[in-house]
Amino acid sequence: MASGPLPGFRDFYPPEYSERAFVIQTWRDVACRYAFVEYDGPPLEPLELYTRKSGDEIVAQLYNFTDKGGRDVSLRPEMTPTLARMVAARANALRKPVRWFSVPQLFRYERQQKGRLREHFQLNVDILGEADVTADAELLAVAIDIVRAFGLTRDDVVARVSDRRLWHDRFVGNGVAASQLPQLFAVIDKIERSPRDVTLERLSTMGLGSRAIDEILAFVQRKSVDEFIDAFAGAAGMQDRVRELRRYRAYLQALGVLDFVVVDTTIVRGLAYYTGIVFELFDARGELRAICGGGRYDNLLESLGGVPMPALGFGMGDVVLTELLRARGRLPAAGASLDFWVAGSDEALLPQVMMIATRLRAGGRSVEYALRGQALGRQLKSAAAAGAQRVVIVRPDLVDQGEAVIKTLADGREERVRLDDWLDAA
Amino acid sequence: MASGPLPGFRDFYPPEYSERAFVIQTWRDVACRYAFVEYDGPPLEPLELYTRKSGDEIVAQLYNFTDKGGRDVSLRPEMTPTLARMVAARANALRKPVRWFSVPQLFRYERQQKGRLREHFQLNVDILGEADVTADAELLAVAIDIVRAFGLTRDDVVARVSDRRLWHDRFVGNGVAASQLPQLFAVIDKIERSPRDVTLERLSTMGLGSRAIDEILAFVQRKSVDEFIDAFAGAAGMQDRVRELRRYRAYLQALGVLDFVVVDTTIVRGLAYYTGIVFELFDARGELRAICGGGRYDNLLESLGGVPMPALGFGMGDVVLTELLRARGRLPAAGASLDFWVAGSDEALLPQVMMIATRLRAGGRSVEYALRGQALGRQLKSAAAAGAQRVVIVRPDLVDQGEAVIKTLADGREERVRLDDWLDAA
Repeated sequence: MASGPLPGFRDFYPPEYSERAFVIQTWRDVACRYAFVEYDGPPLEPLELYTRKSGDEIVAQLYNFTDKGGRDVSLRPEMTPTLARMVAARANALRKPVRWFSVPQLFRYERQQKGRLREHFQLNVDILGEADVTADAELLAVAIDIVRAFGLTRDDVVARVSDRRLWHDRFVGNGVAASQLPQLFAVIDKIERSPRDVTLERLSTMGLGSRAIDEILAFVQRKSVDEFIDAFAGAAGMQDRVRELRRYRAYLQALGVLDFVVVDTTIVRGLAYYTGIVFELFDARGELRAICGGGRYDNLLESLGGVPMPALGFGMGDVVLTELLRARGRLPAAGASLDFWVAGSDEALLPQVMMIATRLRAGGRSVEYALRGQALGRQLKSAAAAGAQRVVIVRPDLVDQGEAVIKTLADGREERVRLDDWLDAA
Repeated sequence: MASGPLPGFRDFYPPEYSERAFVIQTWRDVACRYAFVEYDGPPLEPLELYTRKSGDEIVAQLYNFTDKGGRDVSLRPEMTPTLARMVAARANALRKPVRWFSVPQLFRYERQQKGRLREHFQLNVDILGEADVTADAELLAVAIDIVRAFGLTRDDVVARVSDRRLWHDRFVGNGVAASQLPQLFAVIDKIERSPRDVTLERLSTMGLGSRAIDEILAFVQRKSVDEFIDAFAGAAGMQDRVRELRRYRAYLQALGVLDFVVVDTTIVRGLAYYTGIVFELFDARGELRAICGGGRYDNLLESLGGVPMPALGFGMGDVVLTELLRARGRLPAAGASLDFWVAGSDEALLPQVMMIATRLRAGGRSVEYALRGQALGRQLKSAAAAGAQRVVIVRPDLVDQGEAVIKTLADGREERVRLDDWLDAA
C-alpha cells in the first residue's frame, strides 16, 4: 500500500501545518498593512499561458499534461502569467495602481534530485500601473518588512539590489559594445563562484581592454547605496541611473528599510523579462539559496495579456524561509494549544460535560473532552497532551450544588467555583 | 490570447477571494473551538489511492493523468484517502481520538455541464479512533455550529440523519429478506421524486406484502428524533438502534443542536462505505443541493491504510454554502477596507508621507498612499475608492510646525493634530 506522498510532495501533519500557517499568516498580515489585497487563480492553467512567456524550453520543467478534453494544461509553476491574464481581462475596471498579493502553491516537474521539492508555497506581491521608482521602493519595503515581522534583522538578511541598465549605461560606449552585453552578463553571473584569474581570462577573451576590465572589477564590488552613488555619480553615462538611485535611496530610508540594502551588480541573470531594478533577499551568512526575488517587468503584461502596463513584483517561497527561521529560532514552539478540557469523573456526567463544553465554545474558547467514560487521571493526561490550559472537573458530589473544580495545568492550582457564574465570566 | 481560466475553474478577484476567505475562516474558527487541528496533504496523489477505495469506475470522474515519470496520478477528488494514508503512517504515535480538519481544494473531471465546476474547496472534519455514538453527536454538532456561526438558523438549515442499520433491523426478518435490501434502497432512494403509486408498484414488484409496504411508507416519514424514538421504541428488532438513538439525542441536546435535526430514513444511498449514522445538511427550503454530508465509516481506514480504526467525518463544500449565504444575506458586504490613506499636497512631501505610512504600518495599521505626486482632491477620491477610514493630510505649511490634518471620510470631519503625538497614540 502507498504509505507516503508522491516524490517531491509534502504531507503537512498538524505540527508542519502549523509552521506553514504561521509563515503564510505573517505574509498576509504584512501585505495587508501595505494595503495589498489578496486574489487567487486556478492551480491548473492552459500550458500556452507559460510557453507564451518563457518559450517551449520551459515545458521540460513543468508539471504539464494533456487533459481528458485534449487540452494541453499545466499545474501552475509561477503566478505572474495568471496575474497578467486576470488583470488584462479587467484592465479598465481596476483602480490603479493595482496592489495585489497571492499565496499560491506552485509546481515544477524537474529531474528528481534528492530532497528537491516539486511543490512549494510562494507569496507573490505585485504593483501594476506605476512606472515610478516610488513603487520599486514600496515593493522592496514589503519584502524587507516581512522578514522583519518574523523577527529577523539586518544581521540575518541582506537585500541585494541591481539593475541591468546600470551595466548598459556604465559600459556601453565605454569599452563594451552593446552586442557584447549578453556575453559579459554570462561572465558576471559566474564571478562569485570563479577564481579571479579565470574571470580575468574570460574578460580578456571577450576582447575587452585592461581599463574596461579594471572598471568592471570595481563595478562588481558590493556597496551600500550611498557608496555606490558616491563612486559613480561622476562616471560618464550614469547620470540618469544615479538620479533614480538617489530617489530610490531616499524612499527606502523614509520606509525604514535602507539599512538592509546593498547594491550588488553581480545579479545580472534573473529572469530575462526584468526591465529595471531587481532585488534578491539572502540570509546574511550566505548559506542558503535566495529567500525572495523580484523586480520591475514593464513589458510583460503587454506581451502576456495584451495590455501595456508598467509592473513590478516579487516572489517569496516557504521552503528556504522556513529553513532560515528554524536556524535562527524564529519559528513558534510546536505543540497543540487548547483553552479548556472538560473532564467528568463518571460516564453518566457526559451530558453535563457536553453542556459545559458547548457554553465555553459559544464564547469562542477551544474545548475538548473525552468522548467516553474514563478515569479522571487518564483524562488529565489527555488534557496535558492536548496542550490544555485549564481543566473543568465535573464531579457528582459537586454537580448537584451547581459547582465544579477548575484546575490550571501549568501550576496544578485548583479552584472550586459556582459553575454558572464562572461560565458567564469565562 | 487566453482570457479566462480553464472550463470549470474559478478566478478569485479580490471581491470573490474575500468571500472565499470569509467562508474558510469561519470554518477554521469553529473547527478550532471544537479542538480539531488542521492538516493538509498534496493536491496530487497516486491514482491507486482512489481506485483502491472506489474501484476503477471512479477514474471516469477524476482529473487523472500519467506524469513524466510514468506514474498514474490524480488531482485529489476527495480528502479521505489522503487522511487514511497519513494516519496509517503514524497510527501508533497519534493521540486518540484523532480530531483533524483540513480545507483542501478538490478536483473532478466530469462531463462538462453548463456552469458545473471542476474544482471546489471543501472543509473536511474527521474523528478517528472512537466507536461510540458520543463521537457521532460531537461531529454533527460541529457541522451545525458552523452554519450557526454564519448566522443561519433552524429556519434556514435542517440536518437529516439516517442509518442503513435502521432499515436492516426494522425490516429484515419482518417482511424483507436481507438479500432484498439493495433493491429496497434503490426504491427508497427515488421515493422523494416519485409519485406514490409508482413507489407502491415498485415495492409490490419486489414481492413485498401489503403490511410490510405500509410499514415502509410509515418508516420513511420525516420525524424529529423524539417522534422517531416514540414511533419505533416498541417495534421488533429495533431495541439496539433505539437505545443508541436515545443517547445520540441526549448528546445532541447537551451540545445545543438537537432542534436542527430530523430523522429521514430516505437517505440510504450515500457512499457505500458508511457503516453507521449518516447525515446531510440542507437548506430548509429544499432549493439547493446538500450543504454538507458525512457519517461513520468504521471499515475504511483498514481497507485503505491497513490500520483498523473506527472513524467518522463530514465534508462541506464552499459552492452551495456560499450560494445559500448570499441568498440569506449572510455574506459580509463587499468592498475594500483600509485604516489610513496618507496624502501629501506636494510631490516633494513623498518622503514625509512614506515616513508616516511606515509608522502607522509598524503599529499594525493598513496604509496606502499615492506612489506619485497628485492633486489632493484626486488622492481623496482614491482614498475613498480604497475604502480608507481616515486620511492623513500632509501640507507644506503644517509640516514645518510638525502638524497634519486627519480627515474622517465617513463624515468629512477634519482635525488638526501634532503629528508625533498623534502617531504615538494612533
